[in-house]
Amino acid sequence: MPFKINASFAFEAKQPTDVLLQFEAAAIPEQRFLSTDTWLTKSEQFARVPAQENIGERIWVRAEGHFKVDYTCEIEVDRMLTEIEPLRQMDAHDLPGETVQYLFDSRYCQGDRFQSFVDAEFGDLVGGKRIMAMHDWVADHFSYVPGASGPQTTALDSFVERRGICRDYAHVMVTLARASGIPARFVSCFAPGVNPPDFHAVAEVFLEDTTTPGGGAWYLVDATGMATPSDIVKIGVGRDAADVSFMTSFGLTDFLEKTISVEETNKE
Amino acid sequence: MPFKINASFAFEAKQPTDVLLQFEAAAIPEQRFLSTDTWLTKSEQFARVPAQENIGERIWVRAEGHFKVDYTCEIEVDRMLTEIEPLRQMDAHDLPGETVQYLFDSRYCQGDRFQSFVDAEFGDLVGGKRIMAMHDWVADHFSYVPGASGPQTTALDSFVERRGICRDYAHVMVTLARASGIPARFVSCFAPGVNPPDFHAVAEVFLEDTTTPGGGAWYLVDATGMATPSDIVKIGVGRDAADVSFMTSFGLTDFLEKTISVEETNKE
Amino acid sequence: MPFKINASFAFEAKQPTDVLLQFEAAAIPEQRFLSTDTWLTKSEQFARVPAQENIGERIWVRAEGHFKVDYTCEIEVDRMLTEIEPLRQMDAHDLPGETVQYLFDSRYCQGDRFQSFVDAEFGDLVGGKRIMAMHDWVADHFSYVPGASGPQTTALDSFVERRGICRDYAHVMVTLARASGIPARFVSCFAPGVNPPDFHAVAEVFLEDTTTPGGGAWYLVDATGMATPSDIVKIGVGRDAADVSFMTSFGLTDFLEKTISVEETNKE
Amino acid sequence: MPFKINASFAFEAKQPTDVLLQFEAAAIPEQRFLSTDTWLTKSEQFARVPAQENIGERIWVRAEGHFKVDYTCEIEVDRMLTEIEPLRQMDAHDLPGETVQYLFDSRYCQGDRFQSFVDAEFGDLVGGKRIMAMHDWVADHFSYVPGASGPQTTALDSFVERRGICRDYAHVMVTLARASGIPARFVSCFAPGVNPPDFHAVAEVFLEDTTTPGGGAWYLVDATGMATPSDIVKIGVGRDAADVSFMTSFGLTDFLEKTISVEETNKE
Repeated sequence: MPFKINASFAFEAKQPTDVLLQFEAAAIPEQRFLSTDTWLTKSEQFARVPAQENIGERIWVRAEGHFKVDYTCEIEVDRMLTEIEPLRQMDAHDLPGETVQYLFDSRYCQGDRFQSFVDAEFGDLVGGKRIMAMHDWVADHFSYVPGASGPQTTALDSFVERRGICRDYAHVMVTLARASGIPARFVSCFAPGVNPPDFHAVAEVFLEDTTTPGGGAWYLVDATGMATPSDIVKIGVGRDAADVSFMTSFGLTDFLEKTISVEETNKE
Repeated sequence: MPFKINASFAFEAKQPTDVLLQFEAAAIPEQRFLSTDTWLTKSEQFARVPAQENIGERIWVRAEGHFKVDYTCEIEVDRMLTEIEPLRQMDAHDLPGETVQYLFDSRYCQGDRFQSFVDAEFGDLVGGKRIMAMHDWVADHFSYVPGASGPQTTALDSFVERRGICRDYAHVMVTLARASGIPARFVSCFAPGVNPPDFHAVAEVFLEDTTTPGGGAWYLVDATGMATPSDIVKIGVGRDAADVSFMTSFGLTDFLEKTISVEETNKE
Repeated sequence: MPFKINASFAFEAKQPTDVLLQFEAAAIPEQRFLSTDTWLTKSEQFARVPAQENIGERIWVRAEGHFKVDYTCEIEVDRMLTEIEPLRQMDAHDLPGETVQYLFDSRYCQGDRFQSFVDAEFGDLVGGKRIMAMHDWVADHFSYVPGASGPQTTALDSFVERRGICRDYAHVMVTLARASGIPARFVSCFAPGVNPPDFHAVAEVFLEDTTTPGGGAWYLVDATGMATPSDIVKIGVGRDAADVSFMTSFGLTDFLEKTISVEETNKE
Repeated sequence: MPFKINASFAFEAKQPTDVLLQFEAAAIPEQRFLSTDTWLTKSEQFARVPAQENIGERIWVRAEGHFKVDYTCEIEVDRMLTEIEPLRQMDAHDLPGETVQYLFDSRYCQGDRFQSFVDAEFGDLVGGKRIMAMHDWVADHFSYVPGASGPQTTALDSFVERRGICRDYAHVMVTLARASGIPARFVSCFAPGVNPPDFHAVAEVFLEDTTTPGGGAWYLVDATGMATPSDIVKIGVGRDAADVSFMTSFGLTDFLEKTISVEETNKE
C-alpha cells in the first residue's frame, strides 16, 4: 500500500548542541520509496550513521539557534502478512545470537519481573498463541490516554496504571514477550490510523519463520489496535523507546513543535 | 601477563529450564589461550551463540536437576596499555554507528538524568580528563560494601547510597560517561586482585584511538581500583549488567554455589 | 484466647548508635496482659515514647557493642469479631479527620496509581464487599515466598511480581483499599500460625462501626491467611512498614539474630 | 507582617467525585486573621475536618460538574524568628513521641538511603549547623526549573537531577534532615516572593527550643531562598507533599485553572 508521509518538527538550542535524529522511513526490502525529501536547517556538523540492526539511519547534527526538520516521502509497503497465532515459539537454543539481547531487560522493559504474572495468566500457551493472548489482554485492560505517561514511565508503571500511549502499549507487549522467553523489540514507525497523528510505536516479536525450516523472523504486533502490519512504515528498531527516539539531545534544547501526517494514496 | 582461571558454579532446576551462560574468557586478539577446558553437566540441549559485539560466546543449555559448570583456562593478556587522561573525546558526528547505542539509557544506567550533575561537577573537562576525574570522584565517594546492593540496584540508587560492589561502580562510571556524551559499556571479566574472589565487572569508554587518525577505541576503567587493564580478562560486554550475567535463567532455578579463582602464573 | 509470646533479637553497634525499638504487644483494651517481661542490654540512654495513634510504645536506646532484647508475655486477646463483608463504606465527608492520612500515599503504599485497576477489577463493589474481594484477589494471585522481596520492595513491585511475605501482602491490601477511598493502615503483630515463625504484619481498614450510628472502626485483614483477627496480638500501627519496624537504627549496626515464638496456652 | 492572599482554582468532575481540599491559611497562634472569605461551588456534601497535627483544616466536598474555589484573606504573621545555626540537636531519647514519625521514610522522602551521603558531606556538624549546611548545599547545587519535575518525583530523583521546584527542594531538605536523625516535615504555605506565583512549600525541622529547657520546636527552612519565616503563611503540614496537596481527588477530575496572589499590605 502506498503512503504519503510528512513529518516536521523544530527546536531551539541556545548553544551548539549535538542532537541525534531518527525520523525517516527506513530503506528496507519491504519498504519501496517512490520519492523522498529530507530538509534540515544547515548546521556546523552533519553525519549519517547506520541505526540499530542496520534498519534505517541516524543523523547527527550540531545544532545552534532555531533548528527545523522537514521530511516528506512517498513509500509503498509490501510486507508479507502472516497470521501470528499459529506460529511456533523458537527453542531457546535455536535463537540466532543477535536476537538474544532482545530477551534481556532494558531501560523501560524489565521482563524478569513479570515471570510469575505471565506464567499465571498465559501459562498454558506458547509462541504465537501466547503473543496474541497477551495482545488481547493489553488491548482489553489498558486505556489509551495521552498525557497520562511521560518520558520516565516504564512498562512496570504502565502495567500498574493500565493506561498510556502507543509507546507504553509497546513497552508492555515487549516486556510480557521477554518474560515468556520470546525475543521482543520496540519499533518506531509511521502509520495512517494514529489519532492524534504522531510518530507511532509498536512491538516486534521473534517467532518461527514458516518459510525457512529452522529459521525465525520478526513479526509486528500493535496492541493499541491503531495499525496493522500492512500499513506500518518502519523508522527504526531498538530494545525500547530509549533507542529510537526521533530526537535525542546531548545538551539543553527547547522543543518547539511537531506535525506528522500519514495518508494512504490510492494508486489506480 | 599469564593467568590461571578457575570458575565453577552449580544450580538446581526442578523442571527442564532454558539457561543462558556466559562465563568463559573471550577469544579476542589481546587474549591468547594457553589451555582451556569447559565442563558442563550433560543436558538435553546445548548451543553456542556469539555474544554481544562478537566478544565471547553465550551457551544455551536446557537444564534439569542438578547442573554444574566447571571452567579452567590458562590465558595470556597482551593489551596495549594507554594512559586515558590525554585522550581526546570523539566528536559526536564521528562516532561509528555501532557505538551510538552505548550513549543511550539502559536498564541500570540512565545517563540522561545525570546531565546537570556532570555539567556542574566536571563541566570544564572533556574526553580522557573527564573520564579520569569521574573515576577519581567515584573512587573517593563510594565504599565497596558486599551485600549493600542487589539485582535491582541501578546507577541512580548507587549514586544516592554511595556504596556497592564492582557491578555498581561500573554502572555509575558507565552512566556518568554517557551523561557526558561518551559511549560507555559494561564489561564482565576475570581479574586477579578481586576480593572476595568473584567474577568482576568494569566500565569501558570510547575515546579517540591515537594510533588511527580519526578513529576511536574502547578503554577499560575500573573505579574500584581492584584491577588494571593489563590484568583484566574479558568475558563479554553489554549495555549494563543485564546483558552479561554469567547465568540468566528462563524459569525457576535455585543457585547453589560458586567458586572463582584467578592467579597470575609466572612465566620464566 | 491466651498466648505466650517470646521474642528475642540481638545486634551489634560498633559505636554509640540511637536505635528505636517497637516489639512489645500493645496495651490496648482488647489485649489483656497476664504477665510481661522486657529485658534489654543496659544502655547509656533509654526512653519510652507513645507510638503512632497511641497504640503501643516505642523504646529509644543508645546502643554500643552487643545489644540484646528479650521479651516474654502472656496475653489474652478479646477482640470483637466482625464479619467484614456486610460492612458499609463510610462516606468520605464522614471520615474522622485523623483517618484521612491513611488515604494518602506512603513510602510503600501508593494508592493513587491503582485507581484504574481497582475500578476495573472491583468497580461494582463497595465497602466490606470490596475489601473481601480484594483480599480474595490477593490470596489467589500471590505466592508467599520468603526471600523474594526486600526492604525496598513497594506495593507496586509486589503487585507486578505477585509474591512476597506478610509485609508485602499487607502493603498490597493497604494500597488497594486506599485506591478505593477506604482508609487503610499497616499493623505489626504477633500471631500463632506464622510459618516460619517471625513478627507478622496485616492490614487494617476503616469501615462503618455497626455498634455506633454514624461511626467507623478499624478492621483487621490478613490476605496471607495465616492469622485471624481473634489471634492477632497487635504491636503497633503505621502508614506502612516504614513506621512500625521492630528496630530502626540511626547509624550502622549489624543485625545478629532473631527468634520469635507465639503459642496458644489452653486456659481450662 | 500583614498579607493579602487570593487563591482561586477550578476543576471539572464528570461524575460525583469526593475531593479533599486544603488551601486556607491555618488558624494557629502566630497567624492572626484580619478577614477571611472562602467561597466554593455548592456541592452535595461538605465537611471540615482538622488537618494533620491540628494545623489547618481539610474540606471534603462531593463535586460534580464545574467546581470553583475562591479564597481571600488578610492575615498578620507574628512568628518568633530564631537563628537556626546555633540550635542544638535534640537527643533521640528526648524527642516527643509525636515527632518520631517525622524521622521515618515517607512517599517522597526516603531518609534511610542518604545516611552515607550526609555522613560524608556533613559528618562533622550537628543540629542547626548541619541544617544550615544542608540548606546551603541544596541552594548551591540545585536549579529552580518549573516543569522539570512532576507528581511522581521523589527526593531521590531530585537529588540526582539537581533541579525542581519548591516542593522538590523541600523534599530534599526533609530527606537530608531525617537521614541525620532530625525530625523533618513538609509545610504547604503562601509566601509573597514566590515566582511564578503559586502555592509554596518549605521544610520544617525539629530542634531544641531555647525558651523551654529540655524542649524542642519546629523551625521553617526554605532552601529555594524565596521565603523567610517571617513572611510564610502556613496552610498545613505533613510527612511530605502527599499529605498536604491543596486538592486530592478520589476519582477522575480535570484540573482547569489556578491563580494565586500574595501581597504584603503596608500597615501604617
